[in-house]
Amino acid sequence: MKKFEEKTVETQEIYDGKVVKLQVDSVTLPDGATSKREIIKHPGAVAIIALTDDDKVVMVEQYRKPLEKSIVEIPAGKLEPGEEPHVTAKRELEEETGYTTDNLQYITSFYTSPGFADEIIYLYFTDELKQLKENVEGDEDEFVELLELSLEEAEKLVKEERVHDAKTAYALLYLRMRK
Amino acid sequence: MKKFEEKTVETQEIYDGKVVKLQVDSVTLPDGATSKREIIKHPGAVAIIALTDDDKVVMVEQYRKPLEKSIVEIPAGKLEPGEEPHVTAKRELEEETGYTTDNLQYITSFYTSPGFADEIIYLYFTDELKQLKENVEGDEDEFVELLELSLEEAEKLVKEERVHDAKTAYALLYLRMRK
Repeated sequence: MKKFEEKTVETQEIYDGKVVKLQVDSVTLPDGATSKREIIKHPGAVAIIALTDDDKVVMVEQYRKPLEKSIVEIPAGKLEPGEEPHVTAKRELEEETGYTTDNLQYITSFYTSPGFADEIIYLYFTDELKQLKENVEGDEDEFVELLELSLEEAEKLVKEERVHDAKTAYALLYLRMRK
Repeated sequence: MKKFEEKTVETQEIYDGKVVKLQVDSVTLPDGATSKREIIKHPGAVAIIALTDDDKVVMVEQYRKPLEKSIVEIPAGKLEPGEEPHVTAKRELEEETGYTTDNLQYITSFYTSPGFADEIIYLYFTDELKQLKENVEGDEDEFVELLELSLEEAEKLVKEERVHDAKTAYALLYLRMRK
């Protein structure tokens, strides 16, 4: 849908980084006026709702520099260039948790911050996990700790704001509704 | 929690815009190595789950330049400097929908993109709406269309990817669970 479309007059590239790019678009608004839109370009990401055989939610704790705190999230990671989301999902599950699966079900996708970023998250579900025999190396600048929590334990962390991100909040509601 | 804390060695300010700031922090990792973190600073936002007397979900359609499409979302908006989230929530509800309320219940908050941004959304709920007698002016560069949809109609838009953002996806799950 293109309702209220804002046509690009000019794009100014501000920054091209490791994770994000920043550009400022000059746009024509529906009433003919002009404005500027600050846009973060992001490669997109996946996240995985993974349940162990004893019905625990597989989660990872990691430090999030923008928040200056560590939070507990479902496993997730960025798409590599040209990588299909379900391939990313299996790879990130293996790297972050030591589990793998042959049965990843696609649930939904959503943009995280549509006002200023094009980041999209593809969300998957599995309850058929197998332990990897050998650990798979992840990004060398990522430090994550594996947690396996009952849904009730995870929901308690929401109240404590130790679970504090949108995809994980969604995932826990999804699991609650599935019960 | 500060597990795996990444200490800032240096902050490089890249861009200071209307909505976002971009900085790159040089950090010391838990193993002593150094890395860079690209960080978007955002003022934070609110979103409102609002139900009409006949149980319709109040939503707004608007063009989202980063996605190059219009999507249907729950009403939302950015915090002004120093503004309390519940004040923002009432103001954005009035500006975007023509409704007001004296009963906003805080539900939860979540970071939208903890890997690269500090944007937090404070989520509110109301089912006590009153029509404003006069429209309140919103931002002059925002064009929004009001929609009032049954939960089933809104869920259909999720499947069509016309509802396609994290906060609205969360809101619709929340309403489904409330039934």
